[in-house]
This record gives sequence, structure tokens and C-alpha cells, in this order.
Amino acid sequence: MINESMTNEPIAAYQQQIELALKNKKYGSNPKELYEPIEYMMSLGGKRLRPVLVFIGCEFFGGDTSKALHPALAIELFHNFTLVHDDIMDKAPLRRNQSTVHTKWNDNIAILSGDTMLVKAYQELCKSPSVELPKLLELFSETAVKVCEGQQLDMNYEKLYKVSIAQYLKMIELKTAVLLGGSLKMGALIAGADEKSAQNCYDFGKHIGIAFQLQDDVLDVYADAEKFGKQKGGDIVANKKTYLLLKALEMVESNRYLKEELHQWINAPSFDAKEKVEAITAIYNFLNIPELARTEMKKHYDMALTYLHEISVDEIKKQELITFADSLMVREV
Amino acid sequence: MINESMTNEPIAAYQQQIELALKNKKYGSNPKELYEPIEYMMSLGGKRLRPVLVFIGCEFFGGDTSKALHPALAIELFHNFTLVHDDIMDKAPLRRNQSTVHTKWNDNIAILSGDTMLVKAYQELCKSPSVELPKLLELFSETAVKVCEGQQLDMNYEKLYKVSIAQYLKMIELKTAVLLGGSLKMGALIAGADEKSAQNCYDFGKHIGIAFQLQDDVLDVYADAEKFGKQKGGDIVANKKTYLLLKALEMVESNRYLKEELHQWINAPSFDAKEKVEAITAIYNFLNIPELARTEMKKHYDMALTYLHEISVDEIKKQELITFADSLMVREV
Repeated sequence: MINESMTNEPIAAYQQQIELALKNKKYGSNPKELYEPIEYMMSLGGKRLRPVLVFIGCEFFGGDTSKALHPALAIELFHNFTLVHDDIMDKAPLRRNQSTVHTKWNDNIAILSGDTMLVKAYQELCKSPSVELPKLLELFSETAVKVCEGQQLDMNYEKLYKVSIAQYLKMIELKTAVLLGGSLKMGALIAGADEKSAQNCYDFGKHIGIAFQLQDDVLDVYADAEKFGKQKGGDIVANKKTYLLLKALEMVESNRYLKEELHQWINAPSFDAKEKVEAITAIYNFLNIPELARTEMKKHYDMALTYLHEISVDEIKKQELITFADSLMVREV
Repeated sequence: MINESMTNEPIAAYQQQIELALKNKKYGSNPKELYEPIEYMMSLGGKRLRPVLVFIGCEFFGGDTSKALHPALAIELFHNFTLVHDDIMDKAPLRRNQSTVHTKWNDNIAILSGDTMLVKAYQELCKSPSVELPKLLELFSETAVKVCEGQQLDMNYEKLYKVSIAQYLKMIELKTAVLLGGSLKMGALIAGADEKSAQNCYDFGKHIGIAFQLQDDVLDVYADAEKFGKQKGGDIVANKKTYLLLKALEMVESNRYLKEELHQWINAPSFDAKEKVEAITAIYNFLNIPELARTEMKKHYDMALTYLHEISVDEIKKQELITFADSLMVREV
């Protein structure tokens, strides 16, 4: 999960436009078991980051943002479809502090209403201007396949004993980052950007996405819990294979004592959560892992900027995009 | 399940072309947990009725059938996606006498590889000539949504005590018949048929589809088991809400003795399968239900012909299509 706090004024206007369009959107009514979960899921809110990125990508290339709405809604529908299905697979009880679809209804309804959302996403995308449609469809489907691959890798890695940092980075790239890049590129294509510029936009978004996911890993342990609004160390308690844990597992290989301690905590059948978080955080600190994570984060942030600077648009526009990307970064770290 | 035996020569050529294209198709390789189930499912065979219908629809309007391959494959991918997800929902262990995807792998893999198949179906469809693409996409998505609605209704009706014949007919129309109509119409659109003719083609296929499903209900009980290749009365043993059972339930309302007997068999916690099949078949026979089912079947078959006769193409072509539709009807009834 990446953090999505946005304050910027035009951004807020895009958010409002998306929210209003979603509110007015009718998905269908019969059978209600199919459509109520879709209405429910789409009304759970969130910052609508991905559809906003479609608008931003379009505006960045001076495009007509009125053309961005349908593709933006398509992206949001797709994103929510993945959440519904991922939540079944992860057996997650809550999403945005509300019951997940498969909990509120059941697994079968969640499978089928998710399927319907994916079709509805394509229907929404197909309302785009027909000149751009083939390119948009190609990008949308390619991105969708990657997101599925990323989710499968994530599930594989949960059961795998050893996951390398390279494998982890590839997984978060596919599962999370390509959809951010894809959203920006979709906006670029709507604005009529050339393929190379649009692709640079995609790579910018992708690397920003990877940096955000890494930051999310760090924040879980090191954020000011009150400001971040989440239980501190939730990932540690759940043995979630984050960058921090994988890096620690890699590094303790050469330190028998630390290795034993870390594995003991990971394998403990019962434990005091606070104690476990403190003990593993101490190991992270000793190994300087937050710093290593920030270095990796910075690397992707800088790569993102490299792609951005390749694009021939006004420096002011680029600066706006950077400011927006920075605004997504939570300041407490 | 509708019966799909085809012998016709050009049909066999279409089948071969589809089979070859499917055999050569690469879906992806990494992660293998995502792509092996897709390869597996798509190689399980079957008569490829739906993609064949795309070719037939195209040929019917004198279109260039070389343009029909991609949409045909898209339809077959979509159909198989629905089978993968339906099998999870129905907890079905077997499909075409082989393990279902969720049994051979697991539910999560079946959900995700199914999702990927749906996206791959769109990717395949998008290889269609761009002039026809918007119409094809519209038809494809509309049909896909209806199939999802049909599956949801089917699940609803499993748990519902009273399901009317009208509800049942609407359910099989959505779950099964519209995809047959949609396949034919897709071929018609590729051939450049006008909207009205293409829609008549759709309605022809839809009503033939309803007739076939009704026939399937009858065959389960009354077919020569050896020729039909299925356990006789499987639907009766499983209390499956077929046309026969629903009609019987409706008719026994006015006959206290039969009502009690039928409900006793339906609610029996344990029973001898052969005895149950014989007893319920006797009730069906007494109520003349096979004849009523055939009347309903005939009604839809005749409606199909009415739509066909609305279309302005050579009578010879129409006769070919009728011959093909008839060839799908199993002769043992």
C-alpha cells in the first residue's frame, strides 16, 4: 500500500471531478448480489491517486483533460477490481477500515463482482476518443497483465523461504508501480504525446511507485504512528516480506547470533507483539537497514527524475510534477 | 452445458484452424504459477463451438473469414475464463474429465489465472481490424457482463426455494445463450453486416442456445446414456434446478400426493441414486414434463428461425446455418 496524501489545488479539483463521476456512475442493478458489491467497493473512497495521475499525465503534455475522465475511471475500476480479488486471496477482513467484499458478502460474490468490475473498466475505457483508443487499450491490457503477474509473485514469495531483494523489487514494480506509470502514460497518450515521451512518463511513474512502496515499508516501522494512522510494526508482527525484513535476512547470514535471534522471532509460534516489534526493530537499526532502504528509495527517485528530464516539456511543468510526487512522500520519516 | 457435436466439413476446417492457433499461442511464462493453468485450461479441448460460431457468422454474411481468427480466439479465451471461475464457485472437481484448475493448483491461482485470461481475451480481440474494433469491443463487453449476471443468478437460484420457469429461462439466456448469439454476431460484424442483420443473427444464436440448454436438461434424464456419454440422471441426483425439476415443482403444487413424494426425494438426506432417478423420472413422465420441455424448446427453436428469416441473405446460406444448428441437436431424444 502506498501512501496517498495530496493537498495541491488542481489535484483536489481532479479528485472532486473523479469522485463526482464515480458517485453518479450506474453499474447496473440486477442481480443486486452482483452490483451492490461494486457500488460498495467504489464508494469506499481513498485518494483516487491513479485516476488523478491520468489527469496529471494529460495536463503535463498540454492535453485536453476533459478527455481524461473515462480512462481515469477505467483505471480506478481496474484498481478496485484488483483490490477485491487480492483481498480474497489474502483473506483480508478489512479494506479502508471497512469490511472487504468477500467478508461482507462471500468469496463467490467477490470473485464474480470483481470479474464484472474488470469488464466495466474496459467498457469505461472504450468511451475514450476512438483515435487514441487502440493505444490506450494496448497499454491498459499490458499493465493489467503485469499487475496480475505481480500479485502471483507476491503469493509465491509468501511461501518461499528465500526471496532476494531483486525479486522483491521486481514484484513491487509489477504489483504496484506499473499501474502508477501506466496511469501517467495513459494521460500522456490522451494528450497525444509521442511514444518516447509517453514511455518516459511511464518510467518516471514506475520508479516513483517503487520508491513509494519502499517508503511504505520503512514507514510501517519508523513512522510516527499517530500521524501515519497505522499500527506501528504491523508488517513485523505478520512476518511480511518487506524490503526491511528481506535485507535483514540477507545480512544476518554472516552473523550467527543475529541470524538465530531474527529467525527465532520469525518462527515463534506465540509472542508479545510489542516485544517482537522492538526486538526486530533493534536488529534493523543495528544493521542500518532504514538507511539502506532510503538509499534504494533515493536510487529509484533519482531514476524517476532521469526519465522525467528526458521529456521535452517546460521545466515549470516538470517542477510541478516533482512537487506533486514529493507531496505524496510522507514527511515524518 | 450444451452439447457440441459437429461433423460438417467447413466446420471441421474452422475447428482445426482454431485448434492450431490455440496450440501455437504463447500466453507468457513467468511466473509459471500464473501461465501454466492458462496453458492447461486452453489445451483441455472441447469442440470450440463458440469460436466456430464467429467464423460461421462471418461466412454467413460473405465476410473475409481470415479476419475472424482473433475475435474467435478472444471468445474462446473468455469462455474458458468463465469456466475457471465458475468451477471455483461451484467447487467442481472435474472439467472435461480432467482436474479443474482450482483442484490441480488452488483457488487463488484459479482466480488470478482466470483474471489474466480475461485480460488476454481483450488483448486478442484488440488484434482485430481497427475499423470493426469499437463495435466488437462493445458487443464483447456487453455479452461478458450478461454472462456474469447469469452466473450470479444461477448461484442465487441454487439457494432459492422457489424459482419460476421464467426466472430459469432468463438465467440460461444470460449464462449460456447470449455468448452463442454474441459469437455469431461478432462474426457478422467482422463481415460488415448492418446492425439490424447482426442483431438478428445474435437473437437467432441466443434462442438456439436456450433450446440447446433445455435439450441438455432433457437429455440428462432421457438420453441413451451410452451414446450421450454421461451418467443418466446426474441432475436428478444433485437436485439441480433444471427446467424439468422446476416445472415439476410448479405442477405438483396442485397434487398433494405427488408434491409430498417429490419433496421427500429432494429432501432425503440419504438415498439410493438409481431409486431416486427412477422415482423422479416417473413423476416427470406422469406430469408429461419431457413433452412440455420439448414444447418450450421448439418455441425457442422457432423463434430463432423467425430471426434468421428476417435477414436478407441467400436462402441457401440460411439453410446451411439451420443444418448446422440441427447438427448440434443430439438425435437420441
